[in-house]
Amino acid sequence: MATYKPSIPKGTRDFSPIEMERRNYIFDTIKGVFRLFGFNQIETPSIENLSTLMGKYGEEGDKLLFKILNSGDFLKNVDNSLWENKELGPLTTKISEKGLRYDLTVPFARFVVQHRDEIQFPFKRYQIQPVWRADRPQKGRYREFYQCDADIIGSDSLYNEVELIQLIDEVFARLGIRTIIKLNNRKILAGIAEIIGEPDRLTDITVAIDKIDKIGIDKVNEELKERGLSHNSINKLKPILKIKGNNIDRIETLKKILKDSETGTKGISEIEKVLSISENIGLRAGIDLDVSLARGLNYYTGSIIEVKARDVEIGSITGGGRYDNLTGIFGLSDVSGVGISFGADRIYDVMNMLDLYPAESQAHNEILFVNFGEKESQVVFKIMKKLRNAGLTCEIYPDAVKLKKQLSYASARNIKFVAIVGEEEIKENLIVVKDMENSSQNKYTLEELIEKLAK
Amino acid sequence: MATYKPSIPKGTRDFSPIEMERRNYIFDTIKGVFRLFGFNQIETPSIENLSTLMGKYGEEGDKLLFKILNSGDFLKNVDNSLWENKELGPLTTKISEKGLRYDLTVPFARFVVQHRDEIQFPFKRYQIQPVWRADRPQKGRYREFYQCDADIIGSDSLYNEVELIQLIDEVFARLGIRTIIKLNNRKILAGIAEIIGEPDRLTDITVAIDKIDKIGIDKVNEELKERGLSHNSINKLKPILKIKGNNIDRIETLKKILKDSETGTKGISEIEKVLSISENIGLRAGIDLDVSLARGLNYYTGSIIEVKARDVEIGSITGGGRYDNLTGIFGLSDVSGVGISFGADRIYDVMNMLDLYPAESQAHNEILFVNFGEKESQVVFKIMKKLRNAGLTCEIYPDAVKLKKQLSYASARNIKFVAIVGEEEIKENLIVVKDMENSSQNKYTLEELIEKLAK
Repeated sequence: MATYKPSIPKGTRDFSPIEMERRNYIFDTIKGVFRLFGFNQIETPSIENLSTLMGKYGEEGDKLLFKILNSGDFLKNVDNSLWENKELGPLTTKISEKGLRYDLTVPFARFVVQHRDEIQFPFKRYQIQPVWRADRPQKGRYREFYQCDADIIGSDSLYNEVELIQLIDEVFARLGIRTIIKLNNRKILAGIAEIIGEPDRLTDITVAIDKIDKIGIDKVNEELKERGLSHNSINKLKPILKIKGNNIDRIETLKKILKDSETGTKGISEIEKVLSISENIGLRAGIDLDVSLARGLNYYTGSIIEVKARDVEIGSITGGGRYDNLTGIFGLSDVSGVGISFGADRIYDVMNMLDLYPAESQAHNEILFVNFGEKESQVVFKIMKKLRNAGLTCEIYPDAVKLKKQLSYASARNIKFVAIVGEEEIKENLIVVKDMENSSQNKYTLEELIEKLAK
Repeated sequence: MATYKPSIPKGTRDFSPIEMERRNYIFDTIKGVFRLFGFNQIETPSIENLSTLMGKYGEEGDKLLFKILNSGDFLKNVDNSLWENKELGPLTTKISEKGLRYDLTVPFARFVVQHRDEIQFPFKRYQIQPVWRADRPQKGRYREFYQCDADIIGSDSLYNEVELIQLIDEVFARLGIRTIIKLNNRKILAGIAEIIGEPDRLTDITVAIDKIDKIGIDKVNEELKERGLSHNSINKLKPILKIKGNNIDRIETLKKILKDSETGTKGISEIEKVLSISENIGLRAGIDLDVSLARGLNYYTGSIIEVKARDVEIGSITGGGRYDNLTGIFGLSDVSGVGISFGADRIYDVMNMLDLYPAESQAHNEILFVNFGEKESQVVFKIMKKLRNAGLTCEIYPDAVKLKKQLSYASARNIKFVAIVGEEEIKENLIVVKDMENSSQNKYTLEELIEKLAK
């Protein structure tokens, strides 16, 4: 029995104290920047009605939703034929009405529509919560992971894009992750589809283009062929995918190529404005116009943003874009928004790989009082109360065991100071403090100790 | 279509920015005190294997677990007879292997056993995460709510109880909630069962006693009778339930009544020690020995702690106790622990009812820059960058709309300062700042503004 070890579902994780400190460092940094830019926090329930979630993430997404079995007699009103014919789909909707949040965007759209009368538009909200996907777990992909989203909804101003790019730059500068911010515009992609003569195949084209980094141009062309694009169109597409030079060069080339497409031209002028203002304000990250940037999601209508780490191969660590009709799915149309989502767990992996945590975020400027037994502890409790009132973290070892054991507890817990209040110290009304880092030892009055540590 | 409003599952809630500020104030306060007392944070997955959760909360609890439908073909390997005969139990275990966390205690026990080789004992952990229960929603009872737990595991020292009581006192003092901390000891209850001649009926007795506040002593006696206790035993119990006086009187009375019960006597000496040390250190809350305090949970073996608010009728807002064998259910025996759980959502309700939020926790020392268009905005973005580098929250209204609209946005968002950088200000290289509270208006250089607000 004693050898039996319980486990957790695959794709989920426990986080130890050290891991939590590191994760909190990342979340607090992102949160701090969100606030600095005037975003306000909301939270939505982990559980949403499946009617809210289904059909919003494509067929594949519907499959990846974690569905919750109805409580009580989930079989009542279930027609036997559903079982007999194993009609999974209809059966599922009968026995399960609720599911776990799959991302923060759809619940946000639902929130905006549901509370539209209480919301002051433009609405700048941030949200940091876990999401769940019944994906096949693999390195860097989990079934429960955190998203950190910031969206501005109710304004189509491109200044919002500029602000979000500044925000991204600030977050990664603070975390110490060197990044490239990739920019594109869905209207440019639409223009491309138009001028190569495949205006209705935008999705096919973007889905294929999206893979160019992973599988290369030849395989993309193959896929486009499979998807039924004409040889002619694929040829017209090639030069566009090969656009080179700095952002200004790229814009100039695109202007020429897309001059006959009104949509495409609008897309270029939008991206030109966002790029020029952003560069004018100044960024620490690099920023690239990348026409191959499409992203899987199909609700983007304008700007598309993606962030990659320079020093690690791990794919996108942040992404977002503009959607002109996100809330339309819930009956509120013509509300334009733009948002970004930080992939906290990937960022956590990057931080670990590059060991970017500042020392102080892991130091424990903490005091452990040695436990010498009843009489001394009574004194220690009163001392601790005063220290805590001064905002200093301290604790007493709960049992009066050997000093050696208490000290090894302190070092294992990575506690910086060990305080000794024995018979003698009580007489002298002093506290002996041992610095575990350099094992120097000094005597202090309570006031001196507070002064020393308050620094 | 536009009138259709989406909804969320009953018993769940959306939290608006103002509500989030208030909730964060509560969570940050609790978190801060947990840290001050040397507790370290962990997190466990929202989803646990049902084998971990089932059977830990009693039959009723099993029913209230949210169960997740297996992904993919959940019908394969399901014997037809199960749903033909509507055998809900066995069918459920076939089609659902995972469930949502019901509390933080069982996952913590699972965590300790699973990671016992990495853990330094005594292990002081805190955990602040949501839990889910398919309970019938009602006022103050939700299907998704937060628990804030602190436990010390791997030590049977009563100093841990003392520390937790100090911690509780500190949290509610900081929140401004006047409380009474009720203390009891399971060994006292066992002693009582013993001396009234019903040693094996401890559970029946405690479950009944637990209701004394709600239904009164007569109904409790009825219930005890129904539960099959002898008239004689019930009579012996009466004086015990009527114990009066201050804590010292109560202890003296109990000592006499329980003198023939070894267990009972041990329980008294434990509670006597915890009470005397706590009172000696000093508490802002009242602390009462309450023999009627039993709490539903059956795993407590020693101290039992419950906190009630003085100024609101809402039941327990914090509870906990000592369990000598919590991890036994996962195969690791003889690990004693003691813990408490703050009911964040009830505390939130109390804070709202008594309106205990300090003004500063809701002030927005924030600047909105009026948007006058392209040229001015370019300047504003550079100013905002400098303000944010100084740690000051600011934003620009995204569209160059009428000033009136931009100002009403500021007041609706409860933004304290509105900054004006028009043509003239740009020439003078100054910023006009309007204080929305007293609508006073002044001109500043950037440096002056930073200095003014940094305070």
